[in-house]
Amino acid sequence: MNEYKYEDIHIGMTESFSVTVTEEMMSSFRDITGDINPLHNDEAYAHEQGFDARVAYGMLTSSFLSTLAGVYLPGRYSLIRSVEVKFPKPVMIGDELTVTGEVTDVNDEYRFFTLKTAIRNQHGDKVCRGRMEIGVMA
Amino acid sequence: MNEYKYEDIHIGMTESFSVTVTEEMMSSFRDITGDINPLHNDEAYAHEQGFDARVAYGMLTSSFLSTLAGVYLPGRYSLIRSVEVKFPKPVMIGDELTVTGEVTDVNDEYRFFTLKTAIRNQHGDKVCRGRMEIGVMA
Repeated sequence: MNEYKYEDIHIGMTESFSVTVTEEMMSSFRDITGDINPLHNDEAYAHEQGFDARVAYGMLTSSFLSTLAGVYLPGRYSLIRSVEVKFPKPVMIGDELTVTGEVTDVNDEYRFFTLKTAIRNQHGDKVCRGRMEIGVMA
Repeated sequence: MNEYKYEDIHIGMTESFSVTVTEEMMSSFRDITGDINPLHNDEAYAHEQGFDARVAYGMLTSSFLSTLAGVYLPGRYSLIRSVEVKFPKPVMIGDELTVTGEVTDVNDEYRFFTLKTAIRNQHGDKVCRGRMEIGVMA
């Protein structure tokens, strides 16, 4: 885990990591949330709606932004203030996602920074993009 | 699960449900994401940082917005396009959250609507607020 303090954060810093979306993550996420929507759980329904397979929960994909902030940038002293995400393309089980964040702004008065985020699949397609405001508690 | 179609959605519609944040949800979320940040996992560290107890993952709290869209409003035909959330107060394990959404805009051209969202704890404090844009696939 990184342990960047506020003073270590500067515009242009980047961090990234990769993770593969698994069947087990999908069922754990369903158990946590109770979201039994068939787009994520019923292959036949997903096909009817024009998708190649069951679609991963968007909020599961964006859950990896928790890791991006809490483990990588800034890591230990992270406190997420806000998150914005868009989902331009679907994520499927088995997709290997690369989660990236780049510092685009710093706020010395309130000691938080803005992280521009992107999540791409194994084909290089952007499946999630957004921004987070993250406080640093040290 | 609700099965609202696009034509059923109108400004002012609301849905809500309640859920209690459990220790098991926290550990499942950690297993899914790999976010081992001590604010969520180490009571002593949380105290050092001025919190009464370990803080629930913000992205776990916002995961319930998946359920709000996918099960309640619109339910079956939901396709989340974007999500914005802010976390004005911390959530602790054992908190009972009430997740609410209200339709504030509809877009007939692209058949999506805007849902203003709020998550409150058992004391009535708003712990998460935001908005979602949700497509309706029927």
